[in-house]
Amino acid sequence: MHRIFVAALTMVALLTSPFAAAEKTYTIRLAETWGPNSKILGETPRNMAAMAERMSSGRLKFRIDSSNKHKAPFGIFDLVRNGQYDMGHTASYYYKGTIPNAMYFTTIPFGMITPEMYAWFYHDDGMALMQKVYEPYGLLSFPGGNTSNQMGGWFRKEINSLDDLKGLKMRTPGFAGEVMAELGVAVTNLPPGELYTALERGTIDAVEWVGPALDFQMGFHQIAKYYYSGWQEPNAEVQFLINKKTWDSLPADLQEILRVSMRTAAYDMYIQSTHESGVAWSRMTEDYPEVTHKVFPPEVINALRDTTNRLLDEFAEKDELAREIITSQRDYLSQVRPWTNISDKAYLDSVADQ
Amino acid sequence: MHRIFVAALTMVALLTSPFAAAEKTYTIRLAETWGPNSKILGETPRNMAAMAERMSSGRLKFRIDSSNKHKAPFGIFDLVRNGQYDMGHTASYYYKGTIPNAMYFTTIPFGMITPEMYAWFYHDDGMALMQKVYEPYGLLSFPGGNTSNQMGGWFRKEINSLDDLKGLKMRTPGFAGEVMAELGVAVTNLPPGELYTALERGTIDAVEWVGPALDFQMGFHQIAKYYYSGWQEPNAEVQFLINKKTWDSLPADLQEILRVSMRTAAYDMYIQSTHESGVAWSRMTEDYPEVTHKVFPPEVINALRDTTNRLLDEFAEKDELAREIITSQRDYLSQVRPWTNISDKAYLDSVADQ
Repeated sequence: MHRIFVAALTMVALLTSPFAAAEKTYTIRLAETWGPNSKILGETPRNMAAMAERMSSGRLKFRIDSSNKHKAPFGIFDLVRNGQYDMGHTASYYYKGTIPNAMYFTTIPFGMITPEMYAWFYHDDGMALMQKVYEPYGLLSFPGGNTSNQMGGWFRKEINSLDDLKGLKMRTPGFAGEVMAELGVAVTNLPPGELYTALERGTIDAVEWVGPALDFQMGFHQIAKYYYSGWQEPNAEVQFLINKKTWDSLPADLQEILRVSMRTAAYDMYIQSTHESGVAWSRMTEDYPEVTHKVFPPEVINALRDTTNRLLDEFAEKDELAREIITSQRDYLSQVRPWTNISDKAYLDSVADQ
Repeated sequence: MHRIFVAALTMVALLTSPFAAAEKTYTIRLAETWGPNSKILGETPRNMAAMAERMSSGRLKFRIDSSNKHKAPFGIFDLVRNGQYDMGHTASYYYKGTIPNAMYFTTIPFGMITPEMYAWFYHDDGMALMQKVYEPYGLLSFPGGNTSNQMGGWFRKEINSLDDLKGLKMRTPGFAGEVMAELGVAVTNLPPGELYTALERGTIDAVEWVGPALDFQMGFHQIAKYYYSGWQEPNAEVQFLINKKTWDSLPADLQEILRVSMRTAAYDMYIQSTHESGVAWSRMTEDYPEVTHKVFPPEVINALRDTTNRLLDEFAEKDELAREIITSQRDYLSQVRPWTNISDKAYLDSVADQ
């Protein structure tokens, strides 16, 4: 009897093993650039994780570490590449020092607006080119959410000509900072915590941050009157990074659950950004009626655009893959923008006096 | 021995039963308004189904019937309500005869553009109000994809004044048709298959369809020179309908898989529409260089807008729930549009001569 019972139990094990394998739990360690309780940006990987956990009945679990934990907000690329984390939520252009061609997948000045950028990713060469950049590092990269169009920044004085930019002390990082510097702006970088005081005391004259949703908590609208529309990040896509070994270890259904959760969370961030910026801009103008929206004059826009194009041409000349990406984005923009112009732009123009 | 073996087998059954329950397969019958091989619109429920099947390892399966099968393209609401189908993919405003308040969840003239509409659904009262409309019918409704901004239509003659609209024979259905009729347009309805010939022969002077992506195959650009920007559907959201009994029968993980698949497929349709319209508009203007983009003059736009608002006010007066929805959409628009104007609109304007 004992022997038969053992045999039967073995059969139980055999019968249940496919289910047992299917029920295996995977804990994904994710490092984010953002600090704890980060609005919108930090909510995005948590939205992704919640969807994936629910859809997988807990077979996928996530441990999300903020920058206060891993101490490397701009080192996510290395943390995931080295396998210290399985995933990251960060922005591609933070790593342009290590992989210069990464920056194009966040945004370029005078480039695409958000729906155009997603169309380039999902219906043109965007995803394939991004993979070409990250593949050598054993990484997969997916769109991770969009801030939508970013503002040109808070200015204490009006900018009416190119002359007004000369010597202007401004916090504006990255590629936009390089372009601004070419036009004579004294580009400075200060830690986020010092920006408000620096702007208030006149140590700097202007500061570019994100858009109303994230600018609100910085309080710049309390001390700078002019809020200029942007040119430097007409969309800004953050990213999910995944170590390819982790990805390959997942069964097909969990890979799809992860892919779809990332895709939805990314779109969701775009819509949340739209909403929160609407709320914040409305509050700023109510609480501080002297806050005024401005656009740079054509002279300034044209100079910024010419300088951007000259720098992009230089990048394209120096590097074959950079050339491929820049050309692809320019070609796509020239195909999609006429449509944007006769649809959303024409409509918004026609009802602008509403 | 036999008895023991049976007991052991019973134990096998007990041990495997939770897994067996989890492995139960659900076949969802979905009826779509669209015909077979419908571009973009028909691809959307298939994209949803493919994601849900892969994420559930086949525990969710779909049988999608096009209009040639169920013969009721504008009867999806009834098919799902009566339980003949579990789900539908259709547009809310097709059912305004039965449930007048449904139409606001597709679009209203002079209303929100696509990201604004999603923000209203997901971050304001949109989802709750839509559920309030569909709940009495035992249905759940979810956003099902957006065509993005629709064009005002193909015209054989320029529209330079309100007088040019008087007596104009135009195919433009629904609420937009009602507004046009108030301005003296002779609104006609013809089956899609007759539109090209009617426009070519002058039986009609103008036709409104969707946008370049779906207009292209209709060929109107070959016979009408003027393509006017729209006012009547600044976004157009189609919908997924689900019978509540089907929804309630699903385990929690499959409900979440279905919810996320619908949400992603909806966003995906917006991005695909953006892409395909870019491609199609580019081809139209290349193949037919005489095709010209036009905007209605302010006189026409203002009359259309005033008439729209007057009709909406009438709807709001007659029905408490209509008032609630119309007020919510107007309030939300007045909160979010200033942000759209200082971001995407200001940027697109500043680079329009690019």
